[in-house]
Amino acid sequence: MKIAIVGASGAVGQELMRMLDERGFPVGELLLFGSARSAGTKYIFKGKEIAVKELQHNDDFRGVDIAFLSAGSGTSREFEKTITKHGAIIIDNSSAFRMDADVPLVVPEVNAADALDAPRRVIANPNCSTIQMVVLLGAIEKLSHIRRVHVATYQAASGAGQSAMDELRAQERAIVEGREPVVEKFPYQLADNLIPQVDVFTDNGYTKEEMKMVNETRKILHDDNIGVTATTVRVPVYTAHSESINVEFNKPFDSVDEIKELFASFPGMIVRDDPANGIYPLAREASGTDEVYVGRIRRDFSVENGINFWCVADNVRKGAATNAIQIAELFVG
Amino acid sequence: MKIAIVGASGAVGQELMRMLDERGFPVGELLLFGSARSAGTKYIFKGKEIAVKELQHNDDFRGVDIAFLSAGSGTSREFEKTITKHGAIIIDNSSAFRMDADVPLVVPEVNAADALDAPRRVIANPNCSTIQMVVLLGAIEKLSHIRRVHVATYQAASGAGQSAMDELRAQERAIVEGREPVVEKFPYQLADNLIPQVDVFTDNGYTKEEMKMVNETRKILHDDNIGVTATTVRVPVYTAHSESINVEFNKPFDSVDEIKELFASFPGMIVRDDPANGIYPLAREASGTDEVYVGRIRRDFSVENGINFWCVADNVRKGAATNAIQIAELFVG
Repeated sequence: MKIAIVGASGAVGQELMRMLDERGFPVGELLLFGSARSAGTKYIFKGKEIAVKELQHNDDFRGVDIAFLSAGSGTSREFEKTITKHGAIIIDNSSAFRMDADVPLVVPEVNAADALDAPRRVIANPNCSTIQMVVLLGAIEKLSHIRRVHVATYQAASGAGQSAMDELRAQERAIVEGREPVVEKFPYQLADNLIPQVDVFTDNGYTKEEMKMVNETRKILHDDNIGVTATTVRVPVYTAHSESINVEFNKPFDSVDEIKELFASFPGMIVRDDPANGIYPLAREASGTDEVYVGRIRRDFSVENGINFWCVADNVRKGAATNAIQIAELFVG
Repeated sequence: MKIAIVGASGAVGQELMRMLDERGFPVGELLLFGSARSAGTKYIFKGKEIAVKELQHNDDFRGVDIAFLSAGSGTSREFEKTITKHGAIIIDNSSAFRMDADVPLVVPEVNAADALDAPRRVIANPNCSTIQMVVLLGAIEKLSHIRRVHVATYQAASGAGQSAMDELRAQERAIVEGREPVVEKFPYQLADNLIPQVDVFTDNGYTKEEMKMVNETRKILHDDNIGVTATTVRVPVYTAHSESINVEFNKPFDSVDEIKELFASFPGMIVRDDPANGIYPLAREASGTDEVYVGRIRRDFSVENGINFWCVADNVRKGAATNAIQIAELFVG
């Protein structure tokens, strides 16, 4: 297959290149695109040097089967038609099209079938914090319909890109060396701090990140009535998002073991839940892997049918690149 | 007044000394006690050198009016009678007596009157993560009775003492310098990581810290029927605990402004809530102060009468030393 990556120099673009190789995706030819600034940069893919081309309104996408877009919403909107006009399918990592009715929003473990109905030839990759939560919610939906979800996130610097990770590291170095940390990328110092803001604020007091978790979850689970409320927080961790999730559902359940078995039988998930032996999901453990880790699974005694659990995943991989490639894999063969 | 501090060399003991001075508490004489290991250590209080005495079963507490205990549950249990037998009032920072029916558990902004009924001459200081949350819940109770609380915590290293803070700093230094971080105090590396475990696990899958938040909240608010569920997490921050709190209550409310005004009128609280201008509570801002900071106050659209907010306080000060001294101040004059 002829594959294109738009935004090849970014954190997700680089992860996409590594993972196309790692997962043995049948890449016949790989094209890399970027801004004028990154054009000319060369990367090695499967032993072959590939130069980044400047993304332009021309016929460069002729013959491309799948184009992964990871260069921001503005670029996705501007270049949609240029990319799809010769027949390419876009798998878009930005938030540009996620809520459009004619664009499927897909987490393959949960709603793979939706990807096959893409009239605009655009499939949207959900937001990183949504993806890892929805894998778990998709599993619970096999047991009982979900009524309400309350989530508090602990999101890594990598969600804001490589420069944000560099800034966190530089701030930590400054603290260790007794210098004043420099703040540029985040609204406040992130080292030794927490920032209860991810993305910008909307009129209702929630951030865009929080509203993405509400709206994208409903779209993926095909139910606009699921109650979802979220607080999203940036924490001084380099990579892997963690989430404290509380779910209320309709059907009574016998024991927490029933939920653990359900999770363990679901694809893409690793249950790490043996508190007596200090076993629960850790950001450092999930980092660099493709699965969603779940643990601290326990009954919520404050409601009728509720559970609490702790969920961790690599936000650049399962939260972006892995999920995008899993969508592409639905079109192979 | 004749004041004693037991556990004078610990993080909370040191903070108690600083704050007795800072708040102008009427200290006539100050006695410091500690283990055999810290006995003899000298500290300066109001320009005068005071040596730590070894805590023993003798008559050292004769004439003491108030004894602050911050040396762990075991010490509190063992020395209760030795300290109170001559009439001293114990303000205990450990979890030893918190749930005892004849020991009041007090957050002065919320249930100051309870402190006056202490038949054992013991008053318990609640757990740090409970205190900051209960100040806010106490305010909401003025508006409407609370039905349910769901909290996810982001707890600083200082909650585990000075050595834990030192370990986090040493781990960050190791990472910056390219060495392998050493793990001793926490179950896993805390730098660049999150540990979804604070205190040990109980049989129901919750940690002791989580069950403290459930049981202590009910006791302070005088209602065993309030539904409380918690997930407590250690984060790589030196000091100040943060909490994402979701509250459901009985009475409908007009607008979020009603809640903001309620919080703003309550003692011991600072509302930092102007997201359009990037104003919300920050761990770095709360660190070293006595107030509970609240912001990100917004309606929870997933339930009938619910709100979400973000709460930050210095866990060593308001979460321990400040609250203990506020209790003592109830007995002044």
